[in-house]
Parts: sequence; structure tokens; C-alpha cells
Amino acid sequence: MIDIHRWLEEDIGWGDATSEAIVPPYQTCTASITTKQAGVCAGLDAAIDIFTCTDRTLRFTRTTTDGAPITIGQTIARIYGNTRSILRAERLALNVLQRMSGIATQTKRYVDAVALHGTRIALTRKTTPGLRILERNAVRAGGGAVHRYGLCDAMLIKDNHIRAAGSIVDAIRLARAHASHMMAVAVEVDTFEQLHAVLAHPEYRVDCILLDNMDVDAVAQAVSLIKYKRQDCIVEVSGGITLDNVAQYAAAGCDIVSIGALTHSVRALDISLDIEETDV
Amino acid sequence: MIDIHRWLEEDIGWGDATSEAIVPPYQTCTASITTKQAGVCAGLDAAIDIFTCTDRTLRFTRTTTDGAPITIGQTIARIYGNTRSILRAERLALNVLQRMSGIATQTKRYVDAVALHGTRIALTRKTTPGLRILERNAVRAGGGAVHRYGLCDAMLIKDNHIRAAGSIVDAIRLARAHASHMMAVAVEVDTFEQLHAVLAHPEYRVDCILLDNMDVDAVAQAVSLIKYKRQDCIVEVSGGITLDNVAQYAAAGCDIVSIGALTHSVRALDISLDIEETDV
Amino acid sequence: MIDIHRWLEEDIGWGDATSEAIVPPYQTCTASITTKQAGVCAGLDAAIDIFTCTDRTLRFTRTTTDGAPITIGQTIARIYGNTRSILRAERLALNVLQRMSGIATQTKRYVDAVALHGTRIALTRKTTPGLRILERNAVRAGGGAVHRYGLCDAMLIKDNHIRAAGSIVDAIRLARAHASHMMAVAVEVDTFEQLHAVLAHPEYRVDCILLDNMDVDAVAQAVSLIKYKRQDCIVEVSGGITLDNVAQYAAAGCDIVSIGALTHSVRALDISLDIEETDV
Amino acid sequence: MIDIHRWLEEDIGWGDATSEAIVPPYQTCTASITTKQAGVCAGLDAAIDIFTCTDRTLRFTRTTTDGAPITIGQTIARIYGNTRSILRAERLALNVLQRMSGIATQTKRYVDAVALHGTRIALTRKTTPGLRILERNAVRAGGGAVHRYGLCDAMLIKDNHIRAAGSIVDAIRLARAHASHMMAVAVEVDTFEQLHAVLAHPEYRVDCILLDNMDVDAVAQAVSLIKYKRQDCIVEVSGGITLDNVAQYAAAGCDIVSIGALTHSVRALDISLDIEETDV
Amino acid sequence: MIDIHRWLEEDIGWGDATSEAIVPPYQTCTASITTKQAGVCAGLDAAIDIFTCTDRTLRFTRTTTDGAPITIGQTIARIYGNTRSILRAERLALNVLQRMSGIATQTKRYVDAVALHGTRIALTRKTTPGLRILERNAVRAGGGAVHRYGLCDAMLIKDNHIRAAGSIVDAIRLARAHASHMMAVAVEVDTFEQLHAVLAHPEYRVDCILLDNMDVDAVAQAVSLIKYKRQDCIVEVSGGITLDNVAQYAAAGCDIVSIGALTHSVRALDISLDIEETDV
Amino acid sequence: MIDIHRWLEEDIGWGDATSEAIVPPYQTCTASITTKQAGVCAGLDAAIDIFTCTDRTLRFTRTTTDGAPITIGQTIARIYGNTRSILRAERLALNVLQRMSGIATQTKRYVDAVALHGTRIALTRKTTPGLRILERNAVRAGGGAVHRYGLCDAMLIKDNHIRAAGSIVDAIRLARAHASHMMAVAVEVDTFEQLHAVLAHPEYRVDCILLDNMDVDAVAQAVSLIKYKRQDCIVEVSGGITLDNVAQYAAAGCDIVSIGALTHSVRALDISLDIEETDV
Repeated sequence: MIDIHRWLEEDIGWGDATSEAIVPPYQTCTASITTKQAGVCAGLDAAIDIFTCTDRTLRFTRTTTDGAPITIGQTIARIYGNTRSILRAERLALNVLQRMSGIATQTKRYVDAVALHGTRIALTRKTTPGLRILERNAVRAGGGAVHRYGLCDAMLIKDNHIRAAGSIVDAIRLARAHASHMMAVAVEVDTFEQLHAVLAHPEYRVDCILLDNMDVDAVAQAVSLIKYKRQDCIVEVSGGITLDNVAQYAAAGCDIVSIGALTHSVRALDISLDIEETDV
Repeated sequence: MIDIHRWLEEDIGWGDATSEAIVPPYQTCTASITTKQAGVCAGLDAAIDIFTCTDRTLRFTRTTTDGAPITIGQTIARIYGNTRSILRAERLALNVLQRMSGIATQTKRYVDAVALHGTRIALTRKTTPGLRILERNAVRAGGGAVHRYGLCDAMLIKDNHIRAAGSIVDAIRLARAHASHMMAVAVEVDTFEQLHAVLAHPEYRVDCILLDNMDVDAVAQAVSLIKYKRQDCIVEVSGGITLDNVAQYAAAGCDIVSIGALTHSVRALDISLDIEETDV
Repeated sequence: MIDIHRWLEEDIGWGDATSEAIVPPYQTCTASITTKQAGVCAGLDAAIDIFTCTDRTLRFTRTTTDGAPITIGQTIARIYGNTRSILRAERLALNVLQRMSGIATQTKRYVDAVALHGTRIALTRKTTPGLRILERNAVRAGGGAVHRYGLCDAMLIKDNHIRAAGSIVDAIRLARAHASHMMAVAVEVDTFEQLHAVLAHPEYRVDCILLDNMDVDAVAQAVSLIKYKRQDCIVEVSGGITLDNVAQYAAAGCDIVSIGALTHSVRALDISLDIEETDV
Repeated sequence: MIDIHRWLEEDIGWGDATSEAIVPPYQTCTASITTKQAGVCAGLDAAIDIFTCTDRTLRFTRTTTDGAPITIGQTIARIYGNTRSILRAERLALNVLQRMSGIATQTKRYVDAVALHGTRIALTRKTTPGLRILERNAVRAGGGAVHRYGLCDAMLIKDNHIRAAGSIVDAIRLARAHASHMMAVAVEVDTFEQLHAVLAHPEYRVDCILLDNMDVDAVAQAVSLIKYKRQDCIVEVSGGITLDNVAQYAAAGCDIVSIGALTHSVRALDISLDIEETDV
Repeated sequence: MIDIHRWLEEDIGWGDATSEAIVPPYQTCTASITTKQAGVCAGLDAAIDIFTCTDRTLRFTRTTTDGAPITIGQTIARIYGNTRSILRAERLALNVLQRMSGIATQTKRYVDAVALHGTRIALTRKTTPGLRILERNAVRAGGGAVHRYGLCDAMLIKDNHIRAAGSIVDAIRLARAHASHMMAVAVEVDTFEQLHAVLAHPEYRVDCILLDNMDVDAVAQAVSLIKYKRQDCIVEVSGGITLDNVAQYAAAGCDIVSIGALTHSVRALDISLDIEETDV
Repeated sequence: MIDIHRWLEEDIGWGDATSEAIVPPYQTCTASITTKQAGVCAGLDAAIDIFTCTDRTLRFTRTTTDGAPITIGQTIARIYGNTRSILRAERLALNVLQRMSGIATQTKRYVDAVALHGTRIALTRKTTPGLRILERNAVRAGGGAVHRYGLCDAMLIKDNHIRAAGSIVDAIRLARAHASHMMAVAVEVDTFEQLHAVLAHPEYRVDCILLDNMDVDAVAQAVSLIKYKRQDCIVEVSGGITLDNVAQYAAAGCDIVSIGALTHSVRALDISLDIEETDV
């Protein structure tokens, strides 16, 4: 699904001018990948795929796996093989590894914050174009949960759909009629008026109600209402969630908190690659 | 260069299940793109390309352009056309627009911070895989300068190349011998020992010296040294630069400050799309 | 999703030797698409896409739509434009149209057979490689229902998964633990022993139970059992269903009958394209 | 030529949700491919390519080859390797294998029916989009002959070309003038009037005359005429051929019978894949 | 078939740095394409496709067509539209136009040299990778004939096949048995011994005999032999043909002379593009 | 960067009809690649890549490398493996090898002609679409120098840019303002008037001045002028250079001579592939 060849081509173009000039073509080396910040490792499999995609003869040892905690100065992997190949892939591999570890690290903070409540932290579709599968795995690596992957694997009725359909009840009715028996239907509600409308029509089953941009009190009240009327309906909360308030939302009784910032506002974790020794 | 079709496929898969169920196939609408945070606009051309790529019959009006300041609540563009098409592209277009505007906004802060000194703020190769051209344009939109695009359009000798070559002077000699007459050669120095070695060999021209991870005083001293010995050599600084210290680095006399965080640690600007009215 | 360019390339290679030799390059014509068998129309949109993909200047009129009944000798569409373009696309367009109309026609027969019982007829994943979206639409055109699209949009636990997991209960437990809150989980049972095991663990919710290769009596018994214990669980039947026995299965109370033969053993509907007149 | 990657992507999307949840990532197994109907094997090479394309480390043993007869319950191949990989490829591989074996089996019936007469049974261009090379090989596996592959490797003048050219003689003249010395020219005739016109112009050589939709008597008469006037011209018959009448057509003296239904109306042969044992 | 997008990407990479810096984004201009050498025009359609592929809004007027003679200083086309777009495509379009016109011009010289004898001049498969269809059309533009396109559309038995088969007669027998009734079979002979062997087996029809690397006298003798024994067999000559001796070969009675140098050793015709005027 | 798969597909289409008919599927052989003309070897790596791309199990021995002189009758490589695979790749591999060796051979002649003067011989962008990287390497193999790769890796201001900008000085000013600190700027001058304008503005640095279509005397005069005013500016000469006059241009003092004909008007070197022996 990820297009490593295209990403390499973006960075390399017709060739790595510097290395082709300076590095002997058959030189091999040992290079280490070392973290400069503590956090949670993610993207290591992808990084190794990138190196392998550049040169199938590269070899690896790794001291950690996606999802494991990493400490400052930890060498998380070593690479053995052609120096030019390693340098061609270096920047792309690090760009992926740094970003994914940044995502996992931040996810972990949210997960820890709600650990007492058993609430799940999930990503949204606000991922980086072309990197969704990696970012999804990074959220899992940080202990988070996944969501629908994209537009085709579940129905989520949002404000724009409601406007297009005319009313929230019509939207749900149409969704349920069109869905296969294997497809979940969720609906986003912004107001209690919408929520009451949804709950007033049990004949149109919704698998999940997403409370959008509500404050903690409103969420608590909405959760009570939903759980009373539709015991098996999942309650998801999204919008305005931060590390500071996520625990309160969790305490309000929702099942899932989904957070766009996990993937749209990432701080990369600092990780570097160093040639340790070269073999003539 | 950017692969909009693939990005759309990532999000849509075999189809937009919700909209296909709910939105009438020939319904048209007017949708507005509105900012929820102030900053600098970037990625608007790309966002419009994404909509157009989904459906060539969509039409647009826009009230701003990449590089212009945007205010909270400003409607920066309106889209007219098939509702389903607009909803298919919505998330991808916003993901790009939010990220690029976030980059431009942050770049502008750095550019403003060094405005007195005439120093240029540049991006690095620490961009998101597949999005380099967009992120490069976003940095320009924020007033920043560009750098070499990738590995093929200029030589930048870094620590790993020096280790592979055996010495910094050998690395420069080899680079210059291999470079076409149209290719620039830069060298990264971490220490004054390296800097002296470079300056001791004027027969191997370097177009730019990159001071890596030096503190402000060291940079000031290095700049003096370089400008004394090689008047036409550009001095670039990178590593450890923040909004707090960038003005000091600029004051130290360097020509260029390049900042990986401009693209590797982005805060997306909050921007949304709303259907304003639908036409039957 | 479908790769018309590749399909055209398969048929055309470096060019249409016959037409390039015989047909004047700028000749235009009117061509009609006419059915030679009665049935249900499907694939007409795709056929028109194929012509358009060959030459954007072709124009169309159509007298029917996907899902409508068609009679022998009915002209379902006319095409106007460059003769060479029409002949390049002819075979591919007809191959698609004939196959899809064949699928819709056969689906309609099954749907009619169970109409009294309100049972839904669905396709399976036994579709033709590369044509799933078209075949899915053809089944809909015939009045059928859809199923999960592929491996990523719902979980269906089959015999091989059960063997890999060790037991059917373990398989369900693992599936539920890994699934997002938006993903359905179904389980295929071949025996009553398996069915009892599933029903004995209500803590692992399954959205659908698929009764595989059971005779009508067994299905009736299983349906009673399931509806008694898990009122909201959907019951699907598959394996060994024919036009002769499908009504009995429907009468046995299942919700869905899924039929691989709808797409794996298709009889194409006979449809032809004829040039009606040429314009110099 | 066939696009296995795309076909896998169609079925798998972003991942095999069920197996990723249930099957341990490093589990290996032995799986058998077993027929549930007798017939002729075809597509086995392609099926193995599909598995290999999913995972290069899978290993195979096979007890038969394309073109060989297969019996009910015969295990035609075994696969050893990663369970997840085998399950990812299972459905696609079976879809191909079932369809191709269905084609070979049906072809064999036609070939057997005309065996006494030495007539060849050939496929047409009415193949499934994207699968032509496989279906062509399946026809060969069943003992059938091939035809031109597509529009570029031979000229076949059909009714629409004749209408575009104005007359059948003009069409042949233009085709011959444009053809390289390595390209065959065939012409389809629907009437004796057309046939006489073709035979009246020996200066425009045609390598093959295709008698379209003629009854057996007409074919017999046409064959006599052609063989008398153009001894070395091949006579092909197409249209309205069934297993019931194909022997009569063969007896009428034609060289080739081409049958669209071999590939456009296939009954898949029932074949399944079962995990026999798993290794921890 | 030709991959203009890829060719443009090769030349442009991430952008046209010079024009983006210098040419205003919305400037339009009129540019002329002018020949600096006389010859035969070819590749003009392809050149226009390249411009169109860069920017669909470009407009063209043309004063000649592929196959027409062109004189020194002739403006063969004018382009109107966005200056940046024209400059992006300029080099690629000229590279194609110059090469194809060079091929057509040289082909015309060969064709003129044998005009008295009615011999056809044909290209071979010694074309430039990726450009075969264009070079084939260029040979036609120069009055030449085409050959089989590639390995799939006719059989040509060469020395390496004969060695693999064991004998020339075995090779022909196998080829004929495997060929469809629509596929021509040619055989290359280097010696009279081979020629006699071929002629001794009339039961294995060959459509064409290719005399490889024979001198004029040998060709004359071989032609007599072939035409005596197999009146309808085409005789092709190849190897060692130059403008100086091609007329003699033609006089020796062969039907076709095929010349690799037409496409493997091309002199580009000098053609340039000049901006005539810009519109603000 | 080069698209071997596409090139193979161009030549092979759906299959190698001749070899599939004649050569046993599992036959292996030893084949030799032998030169029939003396020159400089180039493209051998690419040729081997082409064989490998067809069949990963082929094995090679080679007696020379790109850049080495080759003599008539020299066997430069041997290939071991499946005969059909070797024959599928033969023509494409030879087409590349012959062309690249032709380029290297001709480059070597130019390089030798100016060897006394230390002038560099460089290619231009007048390369064959899709083959630039190979042709660039072939020029290097012949001892030549490279130039900018394409439009994105350096700025070269040409006559059309000057017309678009209004004046040569404006063009240079804009280029320098837009260029990153890592990008070279060159300007093409056709007249002394232009040259004086360039030299009159030292504030807009140009890294290279390209003297276009000037005679030897003019070049000598221009070189003096440039070296007097801008010591570090490189002087490149292009246009009208032949093997007869290149030494005079070199003697006139320019640094680089760039020659379009190196790649746009190539004479292929004659190289053939012969099966030496087959193993049953």
C-alpha cells in the first residue's frame, strides 16, 4: 500500500550525486540507528522495508520492535551492507521512523491518561496522504485503537451528509437501507436535538454515536441518555480533546475518544543514522 | 509529482459508502472552506487540484492565494458542483491544506524573527514522504527559501560521507572532481578542526559550508573565519535552532538557517469544509 | 478502480491494424448497441466509460439504465463519433456489458425466487479478478444485495482461520479484540457443534453467523437456535444453493443467501454493436 | 501481462483484517488445493504465481500440470509456508484456478466432439478483460487452438469494417495494401454474395475466410466453393456453435471452429484450499 | 503506448527551475517550430501530443503533416499558449521531432533508390527502447514498409532458434504446429544449405524467407530458387545493405529489404523552437 | 529510472511466439555477446540488468566493463541459463548495448581530440526520451563530462527565456533571486552585445556563460573578456562543433564543449548475441 519506490524517487531523482562521487561503489559498512529522545518505537518495520527496497542484500539486527519503549541513546537497529545503498535510503527511512515514533509516543501519553477508565484512544482520517497504514500502525504501537480505515469500510454520517439528506433521520434510514449486513453505521451528533432524533428511531439501528465538539458535561449527559435507550450502541467523542482534558472525557463514560491531532500535528522523535565502521 | 490519484484511493478504496447511500447522485451544492485559526495560507492550489482530480466539473472561487495571511473565520474558497464529488475529496483536500498552512504559518514566524538580519530561512530534506514539492512550496509561501530538492541536484557532504571517504579533504576533492560544472558542492562541518581543513584547501572549491549543531558563539567565530578566507562561500547553519534562538544565529552572520522542524514537526492549521446549500 | 487503460492495451496492443488500414482516419459514424436476448441491463455505465476512455469526443444517447429490464432487439444506446475510436473500444465494451448484464439477469432470477420471504440475495468474493466493483454493481442492478467488499472491510472467520486459531471460540475472541468499533465480525459454521460453541459465548459478539453447506432442514433448525439466543444476529446461508432450492432456504428463515455462482459461473447476455451509418 | 498485484489489492485493500486478528504472524502451515469436480486442470501456474507474488518464501509441490485431467477429490497441489500469506492469496488464486479449469474442461468437450474430423477449436476475443493470456492458455490446456491475440497481430475484416469501407472488396484491398508482409488478413462473410465477391478478386489475397452465423448446409457449400477457388485459404466458422452441433460443422469441412462461449460463459470448476496442519 | 508523462518527468524532475524563476506564470506567447535542414517531416503528431500532455490549453497551427517534404527554414507549426508550458515541453518535443524526421528522411533516400524495382524498404526490431511505435510511423512517413511489430505478432526463426531446435527443419515444423491460423512464419537463412533444407519440406509452409548477410549474387540466385519452388513465398533481404548497394539488391529480385540502420543509427534533423512574441 | 519492464513489454507483447513454439521450456544454454566493431564499451551493466529483469536465474561472466576499449570479435560477456529467457531479452539488450557503445565510442574521439587542452567534452539534454541516464553514463564511459541532468537541477537561461523576461539582465536577476543557494545559474549568449550586458552586472553572479553558435575567433575573444572580468566564471561552448573543429575551439580557451550530436545522432556499434551450446 505504501509506495516506497516513489518516495525514494522523490528524494533521489536520477541519483545520489554526493555518494556516487565520494563513496567507493563496493564499500560496505556497519551503520547504527540511534534515538536521541525517549519515547515509543514505531515505523521500524517500515524503515527496514525502505532499506531492503533500495538494496535486497542489506542485513539488519534490531534490539526493539514497534510498540516497545525506547530510551535516549539506544541503538535500535544496525544495518550491514553496501554504503551507497544505506546512504540512499537513510533520509527516507529516518523521516518515516521519526514521524511514526513521534505518533506512537504521543498516543501512549493519551492512552496512559485514560488508562483507569478503560476508554480507547483512536486515530481519525486526518492522516498524512499516502501514509495512513503506517500512521494507523503507529497509533496501535502506542496502545491506541483503530477506526474505520477510509470511506469504504464503514459509514459515518457527518454534518455535511445530514445537510445533503435533509435530516439526520433520513440520513440514517438511507444509510441502513444501503449498507450490507457486514457494514457498521455511525452518526455524528453536534446537538442534543440531533441526539434525541436519533434515539427516537430505534428502527434504524446505528452502531455508534459520535459526539462532536461537546464539552465534558454534555458528553456525560449524552452518554447516560444513549446507554439508557440503546445499551449496545458505542459512544465516541471527538473534537477539542487535549492531554489535559482527555481523562475527564473518559470519566464521562464514553467508549472511544478519537483524536485528529495524533496524526495531523506530530512532533518527530529525533533519531539518527551513523556509519560506525567501513570495510574496504 | 504528487500522486493525488493514489491518495484518493487510499481514503476512498472501492467507494464512499456513506455518500453513495445518502446523497442523491446528481445533487449539487455550494461548499465553503473556512479557517478556524489565523496564519498563512498554503496548499490551496493543491487542494483545488485534489477536488478537480476527483471531478473535473467542479468550479471554484477563491478569496486568497498561497502566501497570503488568513484570519479566523475567513472563507478562503467556495466550491460548486456535485455533492458526492466534493465529499469524496473533502478529507484529503483538508488534510493537505491544513498541513501546508501549518508549515507556512510556522515558517513565517521564523522569517519574521530574523527579518532584521536579512538571513534566509530554508527547509531541509526532512519532509514527509511523497509531499516534498508541496512542503517546499509551503515554506516559500511562508517567506522561506528553498534548498537542494534531493540527492541529485547538489552535493552536500555530511559526516557519513566523510567517514566513508576517510577524510573531509578527500571527500571534497572527490566531490569536486565528479561534479558537473553546473553542480554546487556544500560541506557540513561539526568542528573547527574540520573547518580549518576545509579552508586549508582552497583548490577544492566549496560553494557552501554548513555549520552543524554549533552554538551561537561558535557560529559567529566560524563565520568570521570563512568570510575572511573565502569571501564568496555561503555559510549555512543547522541543528538546534528554535524560534527563541534563531535571531541570535542570524545575528552571528550566517547567510542561511535551515530548519528540519519546519516540515518534520508540523502543527496543522484548523480548516473546515461546510456545505452551505444544496440544489435539488 | 477498474483499469480500462490496461484492458484496452490488452486488446489493442500497439494498434488496431484492421481499422487503421481500412477506416479513413476522420470518418465518423453512428453505431447502435442492441441486445439479442432479454434480461436485465448492467454495465452500461462502464461500457460508456470504456468508449470515453478511448476517445473523449464520442457522444452517447441511451434508452435504458443499469437495473432496467431489456428486451430482445432493443437498442439500448447509440454512439456518435470517430469510427476508428468506436471500433477500438467495441470488443472490450461488449465483453463488459455482456458479462454484467448476464450477472444482473441471473441475480434477478434468484431475487424473484425469494421475493415472498424478504430474503436478500448477495454475491460473494468469488468474483473475476479486477472486475469486482463492476460485478458488485451488476448484482445490485439485478436486485441483489452486497457483502463485504474484500478482506479489509469486515471480518469473516472461516474454517481455515479456525484451524489456525485452534478453536472457533478463540478465533472469535481474537477477532473481536482486534476489530475497531466500526468493523463487523461474522463467523462461518459448518456444524451444530460449532454453532453451539459460538452461541455459548455471548461475551464475544458476532454480527452474523454464516451457515455453510447445510441442507434446508439444518438451516431451519439453526435459524431457530440463533434467533432464540441472539435476536439481533444476522443469519446468512451459503453453499449448494441453486435456483431450484433457494426458495426453500429462504423459507427456512435466513436473512441472507450468498451465492458464488452469481459471479463465478456467468452466462453472458448476447449484445452487439452495429455501425448504422457513416458520415464522410 | 496479468496484474497480480492489482488483483491482490482489489481483494485485500489495506489488509486482511480477519487473519491479522486471528492468525499468529509467524505461524506456518501446510495447505492443500483439492478439486471437488472432475475436469481438466488449467491456471495452476498462475495460481502458484499469485501465492508467490504474495510471499516469495512459500513453497509448493504439485501432482499435476495444466492440461492434465483431474478427478474429484484429487489434491492437485500443496503449499507450505506462512499461514497469513496463504490466506491472503487464497481467494484470488482459487478464483483464477476455478475459472481456468472450467474453461479447459469445456474446451476439452468441444475438442473431443470434433476429434474425428481434425477440426481445430479456437477461442475468440470474447475473453474477460485483463485475463486474456490466462484464458488463452486455458483453451490450449483443454486441447484448443489459439487465434489472433488482439487487434494488433492480424487483420480480421468484420461487418463494421465493410460498412466503413463501403464494400467488402475495398476493405480487403485496403487491408492487403497496408499489411506488412508478416501479417495475415482474414475476412468475415455473412452471405454468399459477400463470399462470391471475395473469391472474385484473387489479386487481394485473404489468408482466412470466416463464415459467420451460417447453418451447417451453408457452411458445407461455402467450404466447397472456397476450397475449389482458393485451395490454401483457411475456412473458419463461428456463431451459433454448441456442443450439440459442433460435430456437424466440423463434418462440413471447415478448418477451424471459433467459439466465444468458451470464455464468455464459463462454469467455474469447484476447487478448494484447506489448511491441513499448522506448525507453531 | 509511448509514455510521454515519464519522458517529461525525466527532463523536468520536480520543476523547470529556470522558467519558474524568470517567466511570469500567466504569460502567453506564440512560438514557431522551424526546420534548419531539408528532409521529410515525421513525429509532428507526437510532438504536438507532448505539448498537449504538458498543458491541454495550448493551441496549434501546422503547415505540414508527417510524410511531407520539408525545406530549410520552413515553419512547420506554431504554438499558442502559456510560455512556461511551452518551455517545459520544448526539449522533449524537439528531441522526438528531430529524431523521427531524421528517420523519415533517411528512409526516403532508400525508398527512392529502389523505386524502379518496386521493392519495399522495411524497418527491423532494432529500434530505440520505448519509441518503436514512433519510429515505425517515421519509417512509414518516409515511404517505407513495416515489419512484424515485436515478438508476439509473427514468428521469425533465426539462427539462435535453429540452434535451440537442433535443425532448421525441426524449427519450422514446430513453429507451424504451434502457430495460430492467423500467424505468419518466416525463416532466416544464412546459407544455401539451409535454403535447400527449407525448400525440401513444402509440407511446412513458410510465408517468408529472409536471406541474411548474403551478397548480391547470392541473393539473385536464392530468389530464383525460391520463386521457382514456392511461388507465393516472400523473399526478404537483410544485413550489409547501404544506400550504395540497395538498388543492386532490389534488382536481384527480392520483395523486401529490411534495414536496421534506419532506426539504430539515426542522424537527427535540425529543428528549433523560437518564441516569436509574448503577450503580457 | 529506466523502465526495463515497459521496454520488454514493447518488444514482447503477450509473448515470444517463435521461442515458445520452438525452444523447449526448460532448455538452458550458453550465449556469448560479441562485438563486430572496435570502440568503447558502454551499456553492459544495463544489458545485464535487462537479462536479469527477464529472468533472475540467469548468470553472467564478463570480460570488460563500461569505459574499456573493445576490439573486433571480442566476446565481452557470456550468459548462462534458460534459453527462452535469453531470447526474450536479446534484442532489447543488444539495442541498448549497441547504442550506448556507439555513444561512448564517439565521445572518446572528441575527448582524444581535445586532450592536449584539458577541455571537457559534455553531453546536452538532446538525449533519447527515456534513456537519459544511460546515455549520460555512456558519455562518461567515453571520457566525457556530464552537464545538468534536466530542467530542475540547474538554471540555464536561453534565448527563449530572455525573450520572455524582456532582457538578458532581467533574466539573470530573476534567476539569481529565485535560485536556492545550492543551484548554479548559467546564461547562454549569442552575441557580444549580450556578453557585455552580462559582464556589466557583476552583482548578479552567473556560474557559467555558454557561448552559442560562435565561430572559433569569436570564442577566443569572448573567453579573454570573460576571464578578465570574471575569473571564476566557467566558459562553455556549444553549436556547430564537429570532430574537425573541436580542437580549435578547445585551443580558444573554453572550459567545456557541449555537443548535442553525441546523443542525438548516434551510430550504433555492431554487437551480436550467439547461442554457443545448449544443454538438454
